[in-house]
Amino acid sequence: MESRPGMSRKEFLKLSAAAGAGLALGASGLGAIVEMTKLSGSAAPSSPSSADPKDGIVPFYDKHQAGIVTPQQTYLYLAAFRVTTQSKSDLILMLKDWTKFCDLSAAGGTMKLSDSALVPPTDTGETLDLPPARLTVTFGFGPSFFGNGAFGLSKLTPRHLQDIPRMPRDNLDSSISGGDICAQVCADDQQVAFHAVRNLIRLSTGKASLKWMQEGFASGTPGKTPRNLFGFKDGTANQLHDSPAGYDQVVWAGSDEPEWMQGGSYLAYRKIQMKIESWDRTSLADQEATFGRKKVSGAAFGVSGEFDTFDAAKLPTDSHVRLAKQTGQLIHRRAYSYTDKVDPRTGNVDAGLLFISYQRNPDQQFLPMLRLMQSSDALNSYVAHVGSAMFACPAGLSAGRYIGQSILEA
Amino acid sequence: MESRPGMSRKEFLKLSAAAGAGLALGASGLGAIVEMTKLSGSAAPSSPSSADPKDGIVPFYDKHQAGIVTPQQTYLYLAAFRVTTQSKSDLILMLKDWTKFCDLSAAGGTMKLSDSALVPPTDTGETLDLPPARLTVTFGFGPSFFGNGAFGLSKLTPRHLQDIPRMPRDNLDSSISGGDICAQVCADDQQVAFHAVRNLIRLSTGKASLKWMQEGFASGTPGKTPRNLFGFKDGTANQLHDSPAGYDQVVWAGSDEPEWMQGGSYLAYRKIQMKIESWDRTSLADQEATFGRKKVSGAAFGVSGEFDTFDAAKLPTDSHVRLAKQTGQLIHRRAYSYTDKVDPRTGNVDAGLLFISYQRNPDQQFLPMLRLMQSSDALNSYVAHVGSAMFACPAGLSAGRYIGQSILEA
Repeated sequence: MESRPGMSRKEFLKLSAAAGAGLALGASGLGAIVEMTKLSGSAAPSSPSSADPKDGIVPFYDKHQAGIVTPQQTYLYLAAFRVTTQSKSDLILMLKDWTKFCDLSAAGGTMKLSDSALVPPTDTGETLDLPPARLTVTFGFGPSFFGNGAFGLSKLTPRHLQDIPRMPRDNLDSSISGGDICAQVCADDQQVAFHAVRNLIRLSTGKASLKWMQEGFASGTPGKTPRNLFGFKDGTANQLHDSPAGYDQVVWAGSDEPEWMQGGSYLAYRKIQMKIESWDRTSLADQEATFGRKKVSGAAFGVSGEFDTFDAAKLPTDSHVRLAKQTGQLIHRRAYSYTDKVDPRTGNVDAGLLFISYQRNPDQQFLPMLRLMQSSDALNSYVAHVGSAMFACPAGLSAGRYIGQSILEA
Repeated sequence: MESRPGMSRKEFLKLSAAAGAGLALGASGLGAIVEMTKLSGSAAPSSPSSADPKDGIVPFYDKHQAGIVTPQQTYLYLAAFRVTTQSKSDLILMLKDWTKFCDLSAAGGTMKLSDSALVPPTDTGETLDLPPARLTVTFGFGPSFFGNGAFGLSKLTPRHLQDIPRMPRDNLDSSISGGDICAQVCADDQQVAFHAVRNLIRLSTGKASLKWMQEGFASGTPGKTPRNLFGFKDGTANQLHDSPAGYDQVVWAGSDEPEWMQGGSYLAYRKIQMKIESWDRTSLADQEATFGRKKVSGAAFGVSGEFDTFDAAKLPTDSHVRLAKQTGQLIHRRAYSYTDKVDPRTGNVDAGLLFISYQRNPDQQFLPMLRLMQSSDALNSYVAHVGSAMFACPAGLSAGRYIGQSILEA
């Protein structure tokens, strides 16, 4: 195993036990989960042999939700839930339980295994020895959530929320598209990420059911743009808006939105299969012309560095980078690669990209780009869009409040 | 991204370019792949700002194959190939290409992208910025490989190689079981691992096809036993034989085997679905009784530490650990967890264990354990065995030789 910074949850449990008591939870009084212990704040251990226990902690409570402009972690689970309860109070109970769980897990804590051995443990336990691993859980609400008559929320639908319109080359599977609520779970450790999504599922019992789940990875070295499974850098343009002012312009929804959405963002998702076997039989010149970039350096045609300003007119007219730039719009990309089963007929591997982007106005920023690419992109010969969804992710949460409260109690 | 030790492949490519030439490959003269560059030996950079370039390199050439007693990496791809060619020389060509690729990749090198932009790149490129990440590729040969009349190898079948016999509770899917040749690809970076398996597939074109592939993860902190998705430690007993003498007794095949197999090992594989939703509704007392171990500490019933010697008679008669100990045999476990799709009918996640163990004599060490567990194990209520395979992994390779040469040229 790689060496990991920080103290494990179990070391922390021991420390808490030695101190004589579990710690109170910041957002105490919410939900139905029993007492928990948490690794943060004043309980931080002073042992000089431990690394900083805050290493790897991304705060769950903040102005904006974590996991949007947070530097990309290595692993992703993207889960979409269907709300099954008709009871608003049950729904709120679930969202409160989720809030508690996320607050605690992001801080590297774990629910106390049990006060009694006669009941199921309140935590599934597979992260007991693992660090927080920069876990973030980002929630979004889909068009069908606001359209659900049981909750009467349609008047709170944000301006630009809709299912992504059908595109000419769509080959969508409805069982892996859409959903009422999504949770984007990211961490630098897959087991930490799965633990979170699994416990969200567990805490949704009787109130929601998991509609679909995807898992992905994005390996890179710090400060470098990760490469997709075509071997090309993916997300270079993010640096164009990499500042608080840039995020306000590109990512965060503004004052023309319902109050709960201001400071939130729209998550656009496309599951894109990549025909890696065909790609691998394509010449380097064709691969580079398809993107409009050099493979090794990531530089656009006509310049030498990945981040150099380039003249789009010097790129092939149907190249991916030229088309992305042609709309004059920016989006914040946060994509992950996926690998999956073998097609028994061909021996080909199902692999590709879980494209995720965040933007303040998908109608203006994302959909024109998607339409243009679906009509002209040279990449279309090598990809198929098989899953799709859009979710509105509310602004960040302050301690004591629960996920979705600003919508459900607006 | 997590910070990673060592130099990236691209930094190395630059260095090689500055030095004026690609480096010769240790095992040069094999196969059909064009010139490659390699990060090792005398080419190691002397820049004090770089970490040791050998960080994260597990040697591909050694007495035994890497990836068997190598401390477990975080990610696994297990791939099984069906040999499609009837030509022994074509098969050898593929094995030589695989050898070159593995030697180079384990050393953190990459095939030169292209001498000409007019041909497909000889490397798919997605690891250009990534470190070696302790990549290991371990090869094994299945019963059907030796049974293939085209190659006339049946007299070289090792003593204990057979498909795992049908067990009373088997629920096997033949499309994800068996295979002629397997590659166990492990690394601390999923993208590095996938890159390797993908290029093995690419290099097999026309000679073999991918039958099935599984991916898994095993998160843990250094020196600690990883936990499975039931939240229990998995592999504690490995410490009982954790020494060269112990490996000789438990892992490495001996002098009663064909020469090529001496110093090799048998890989036993079972894909085990875990009903995590049922498990999560079970009391802590029942969970612990099912294993015969405490959940948090990993200690067996009656003792206090994970590695303490315990009296199996004090464990519940149908507990997993008691049954495993009852045969008096040791195996070397190297299991990974997996997570997969949602069952649309139930909303349940397909998740579980890719059980892998290595042993010198599966008839004596593994099969009795498996039979006993299938008949009595309390865990059976929560698991289903859906995939199965056994492979004979030859001894290690010395530079200049190719994978399987000791069998094909015996």
